[in-house]
Amino acid sequence: MDKIFRVNMTDLTTRVEDVPVAWAGLGGRALTSSIVASEVVPTCHPLGPNNKLVFAPGLLSGTAAANSGRMSCGAKSPLTGTIKESNAGGTTAQQFARMGIKALIIEGQPKEDKFYSLNVTVDGVTIAEETELVGKGNFAVIEALEAKFDKKVGVMTIGQAGEAKMTAANISVKDPDSKIRSHGRGGMGAVMGSKKLKYITVDAAGAPGVTVADPEKFKPAARAFAKALLDHPVSGEGLPTYGTNVLVNVLNEAGGLPTRNFTYGQFEAHDNISGETMHDTIVARGGKPKHGCHAGCIIQCSQVYNDKDGNYRTSGFEYETIWGLGANCCIDNLDDIAEADNIMDDIGVDSIETAVMFGVAMEAGILPFGDGKGVIRMLTDEIGKCTPLGRVLGGGAGSVGKTYGVTRVPVVKNQGIPAYDPRSVKGIGITYATSTMGADHTAGYTIATNILNVGGCVDPLKKDGQVELSRNLQIATAAVDSTGMCIFVAFPALDIPECLPALIDMINARFGISLTGDDVTELGKSVLKTERAFNQAAGFTNKDDRLPEFFNTDPVAPHNAVWDFSDEEIDAFWDF
Amino acid sequence: MDKIFRVNMTDLTTRVEDVPVAWAGLGGRALTSSIVASEVVPTCHPLGPNNKLVFAPGLLSGTAAANSGRMSCGAKSPLTGTIKESNAGGTTAQQFARMGIKALIIEGQPKEDKFYSLNVTVDGVTIAEETELVGKGNFAVIEALEAKFDKKVGVMTIGQAGEAKMTAANISVKDPDSKIRSHGRGGMGAVMGSKKLKYITVDAAGAPGVTVADPEKFKPAARAFAKALLDHPVSGEGLPTYGTNVLVNVLNEAGGLPTRNFTYGQFEAHDNISGETMHDTIVARGGKPKHGCHAGCIIQCSQVYNDKDGNYRTSGFEYETIWGLGANCCIDNLDDIAEADNIMDDIGVDSIETAVMFGVAMEAGILPFGDGKGVIRMLTDEIGKCTPLGRVLGGGAGSVGKTYGVTRVPVVKNQGIPAYDPRSVKGIGITYATSTMGADHTAGYTIATNILNVGGCVDPLKKDGQVELSRNLQIATAAVDSTGMCIFVAFPALDIPECLPALIDMINARFGISLTGDDVTELGKSVLKTERAFNQAAGFTNKDDRLPEFFNTDPVAPHNAVWDFSDEEIDAFWDF
Repeated sequence: MDKIFRVNMTDLTTRVEDVPVAWAGLGGRALTSSIVASEVVPTCHPLGPNNKLVFAPGLLSGTAAANSGRMSCGAKSPLTGTIKESNAGGTTAQQFARMGIKALIIEGQPKEDKFYSLNVTVDGVTIAEETELVGKGNFAVIEALEAKFDKKVGVMTIGQAGEAKMTAANISVKDPDSKIRSHGRGGMGAVMGSKKLKYITVDAAGAPGVTVADPEKFKPAARAFAKALLDHPVSGEGLPTYGTNVLVNVLNEAGGLPTRNFTYGQFEAHDNISGETMHDTIVARGGKPKHGCHAGCIIQCSQVYNDKDGNYRTSGFEYETIWGLGANCCIDNLDDIAEADNIMDDIGVDSIETAVMFGVAMEAGILPFGDGKGVIRMLTDEIGKCTPLGRVLGGGAGSVGKTYGVTRVPVVKNQGIPAYDPRSVKGIGITYATSTMGADHTAGYTIATNILNVGGCVDPLKKDGQVELSRNLQIATAAVDSTGMCIFVAFPALDIPECLPALIDMINARFGISLTGDDVTELGKSVLKTERAFNQAAGFTNKDDRLPEFFNTDPVAPHNAVWDFSDEEIDAFWDF
Repeated sequence: MDKIFRVNMTDLTTRVEDVPVAWAGLGGRALTSSIVASEVVPTCHPLGPNNKLVFAPGLLSGTAAANSGRMSCGAKSPLTGTIKESNAGGTTAQQFARMGIKALIIEGQPKEDKFYSLNVTVDGVTIAEETELVGKGNFAVIEALEAKFDKKVGVMTIGQAGEAKMTAANISVKDPDSKIRSHGRGGMGAVMGSKKLKYITVDAAGAPGVTVADPEKFKPAARAFAKALLDHPVSGEGLPTYGTNVLVNVLNEAGGLPTRNFTYGQFEAHDNISGETMHDTIVARGGKPKHGCHAGCIIQCSQVYNDKDGNYRTSGFEYETIWGLGANCCIDNLDDIAEADNIMDDIGVDSIETAVMFGVAMEAGILPFGDGKGVIRMLTDEIGKCTPLGRVLGGGAGSVGKTYGVTRVPVVKNQGIPAYDPRSVKGIGITYATSTMGADHTAGYTIATNILNVGGCVDPLKKDGQVELSRNLQIATAAVDSTGMCIFVAFPALDIPECLPALIDMINARFGISLTGDDVTELGKSVLKTERAFNQAAGFTNKDDRLPEFFNTDPVAPHNAVWDFSDEEIDAFWDF
C-alpha cells in the first residue's frame, strides 16, 4: 500500500501515514493541489511555517508507460501568492513510485538558523543537519552526494538562490546523467529554503516496485501509447531533432516571438539562436541532439550542448530559455545563452522567470540589451553571490519592475510571461490570464492549435475560439499533469485517435479501475476548481486574471496586434 | 471663480478650465479622490501615462481659519495600488487657494527621458525643461529656486528618490521657514517622478485672495474655533510643548510602542528618545520647541532641533519617525535619528515608510539593530545614490521583506504600519486594516480614544467598540481632510462642544451655504465610499483588509496580546 511520508521541520520529526481515502485515486498535480488546498491556510505567508512543500509522483510514474516519469511539486507560491504545481523530470518520480511513496509533505520551519537535509528510504525519512554543502551550487551538491551515496542516489536540491529565498529560485532534480532538471516555476526553491532544507536524497534500495493490477491489459495499451508518441510529427520528429527550440523560427515567422522585452514580435537574428542552428552546432561539436530527462522518455527533446572545444556546456536547453535570453534580451550568441543556462541550473533559478527578468532589467538600464556576457556576469556575481542587486534580479521580472519603476513588465500574478506574445497568439494569452498558476504556457498550451495546427486550427490573431481552446487544454493538462506524463503527450493525444484511450487504459490497468474519458475530463476540471478555490480564499479575484496594461495599449509588430479581450470574455473561461 | 489648472506632460500643454458642477463643493481629499476616481482608470500602471497627480487645497485654505493650510495630493499609489491622498502643510495650499486654483491636475508622461518643471501663476501653468537641479536634494532645490525667484516662492519638489521612482518617495513642500513638509505616504514622489517633474514653483503674485461670502459670520466662528484649539490639553499644551513625540512615553507605558521590528511593545531606552528629552535638548541647544508647518497654525507641534553645536539639524521631527528609527530599530540616540530625519527630507523619502523599512532591513540582517550610523550611511550612500540596495530600501518595508524573504513585515496593502501596535491598541488595527489608503494612522486616529481618553475611552486591549470607533473617526477624518484642516483639530472637536459647530460655521460663511453636522458626516462617508469603489475596481477586496499573519500568531509583550478580530468583525467596518 502506498504511504504518505510527512516531515515536520519545526520539531524535526518524521512520520509514515496511510493515504486518506480522499487522496487514494490522485497523483501528481491532482494530489499536490489537493494536499495544499486541504492543509495550507490560503492566507499564510508562503515563506513562513504554515506553508507546506509537497512532492508527488504521477499516477503512472514507476510503470513501463513511456514518458511517465514526472514529479509534481506543490506549495503556496512566494512568487505569485497562488497555489502552485511545478513538475519536472529526473529520477525521483519513478523512485518515489517504486518505493510506494504517494507523497512527501514537508511542513513547519526550524527556529534556529541551520540548514538540514532529508534522506528518503523505503522505511521513511531521516533528517540531518547540513553544513558542508550550504552555499554550494547544485552541480557540486549532486557530485558530493553521488560520492557519499552512489550513482543511483536521487537528489532534489536548491542552489544559492533557494537558500536566500529568492522568489525565482527553483528546485533542481538530478537527471539520469547526473545533470539537472528543474521544478522551475513559482519559487518552489524559496519554499524549500524557508524550510531550511538544502537537499533531499532518495535511496530506493529495497523498493517493492509498482504493482500493475492488470498487466495483460497494460502492455498493449503501453505499446499503442508509445507508438502514438513516435508517430506524431511533433513528438516523433520535430522535438527529437531540434528540441523545443524548433519553435524559434516558427514563432518568429508567426510574429509571436517576443523581442526586446515584448516590444516587437520578430527577432532579426533569429537564425543565430534557432533549433536548426542549435542542432547543427551540437552535431558539429560532438554533443547529443537527443537526450531524455527521465528513464522511459521516448521523445528525447533534451540534448547535450557542448562548447566550441567539445566540452559539456549544458543540457535541457529549452526554447523558452533561448527565446528569453535570445530574442527578448536581443542576445544573438547561442554559446552565451548556453553558458547562462548552465549557471541558472547551478545557482538554482527558474530559467524562464530569469530570462523574462533580464528583459525588464535591460529596459531598466541595469545592463544593455544584447549583453550576453553581462547576463553571465550578473548570474554569477550578483544572483549567485546574493548581493542586493542579485536578490532583486533573483526575485524575477516583477521584482525588477517594481524596484526600478518599469511599466512594461510582462507578468501575470507576478509570474513572468514566457515566449509567446499574447497579442499575436491570443489563445495563449487566455491561458496566461486565467491559469491558476500565474503566466504559464504549459498550463494550456494553445500554441499547439494556434501555431502548429495540432488538434485543428484556431487563427492566432482572432479572438474566436480562443477561450474554448484554452479551457479545453487547461482541463486536459490538469489531468495529464496528474498522471506523471510529460506535457508533450498532448500532441499525439490531440491528433491520433488511439492515443488518449491508450493512456486511460494504462491508468485503468495500473489500478484495476475503469475510468472513462469523461472521468478524466472531470478530474481535470476538479483540479482547476480546487486550485481556483484556494486562490480565491487567498484573495484572488477575476481582476487578477488580466494581462498587464501595456498589452492593451502598445501594438506589437508585424501584425500591430493588441490584446483586445474584454473582462467578460476572459471571465467566461471559468464557465464550466 | 475658482479654476482647474491642467497640465498634460505627454504633449507638454497646459489649460485653465472651469470647475465642473460635481466638484464645486469639494476641496482637499474629497476633491483629489473625486478627480482620481473619475479620471484615472483604476487598473492603470501607477507609474504610467494613465495615472494622474492631483493637488487640491482644502475648503478653508487661504482663509483666516486657524490650521487650515493643508494641501491634499492624490493619485493611484505605486506603493499600495490603491487610491491615495496624502496631505501636508507648507505654503502652497494657501497660495493655491488665494490664486483661485481649485485643483492642479497633472496627466500624461513625456516620451523623452528629460526632466521638466512647472511654474504656477494666477494666469496658468508654464512648463520648462529642467537640467541643472536634476539629481539634487530637496534643500538644494529650494535654495536655488529662492535665489531664482524670491523668498516667497512656493515649492513642491522631489529628491533623488522621486526621480528614481522609488515607491517610498514623497513630495516635499517648502514651509514658511524654507524647510520641508512632506506629502509623505504612498509614493506620491514616484508618481511625480514618473511625470518627469523635478519641481513645481508657485508664484502667487496678483492672487485675488479668498472671498468669504459672509465675513461677519466667519469671524466669531474662527475665534471660537481657535479658542477650542488652544483650550484643549492635547492641542493647546501637549503638542506645543513636546511635539507629537509626546507619545513615546505614553505608548511605551501602554505597551503599544512597537519595538525591534514589532517584536515587543516596550522599548527599554524610551527615555532617550522621548518628547520630554527632546524638549529639554532643544531648549538647551537654542532650538525652537514650537514651530508651525504653515502660516496660521496655532498648535505649533513642529520644532527646530539643533545639533550639539547649536546648528540646525532638523524640523518637523515627528513621533512616528522617532518611534520608527528609535524603538523599532532599537536606536537610542536622538541625534542620529534627527540627522536621519533631515536626510530623508533631503533625498525625499517618507520617514514613516522608511523607518518601518529599516526595522525589516535589520531583521533581514542588512544592518544590525541599533545601528544609527548605519541608517545614516544607507540613506546617504544607498538610497540617496540610487544603488540597487538603495532602490530596494527606497521601495519601503514590503520591498525589503519580499527581496530578502522576511516573514515579519508590518504592512497593510504594502504600506508600512506606523508607531502603534495593533495587537495592544486594537482600534488602530481596525484603521490599518480597513483604510482605503493602506496602513495609515491618520486615517482614523483611534489613539485619541484608546490611549489619550479624548472623545471618551475605549479599552485598547479589548475588541469591544473598536470597529465603531475607527468607523466614526475615519468618516470624520475624511471630512476634515477635505477642509484643509490639520488632523489635530480632532482633539478639541471630540471634546469641546463649540469646536465642530464653529468649523462648520466657517465653511458655511466661506461659501454662503448652510451645511449641517449631518452633511459633513455624509461628506466623509461619501469620500470613503468613492475611494473604496476605486480600490475595488482596481482589484481590492475585503481580503486585502487584513493585517499580516504574524500579528495573529505572535503575542506581543507586555500584554501578550494578539490580533484576534475575525474577518466578519473587520468587514463590519463598511456597514454604513
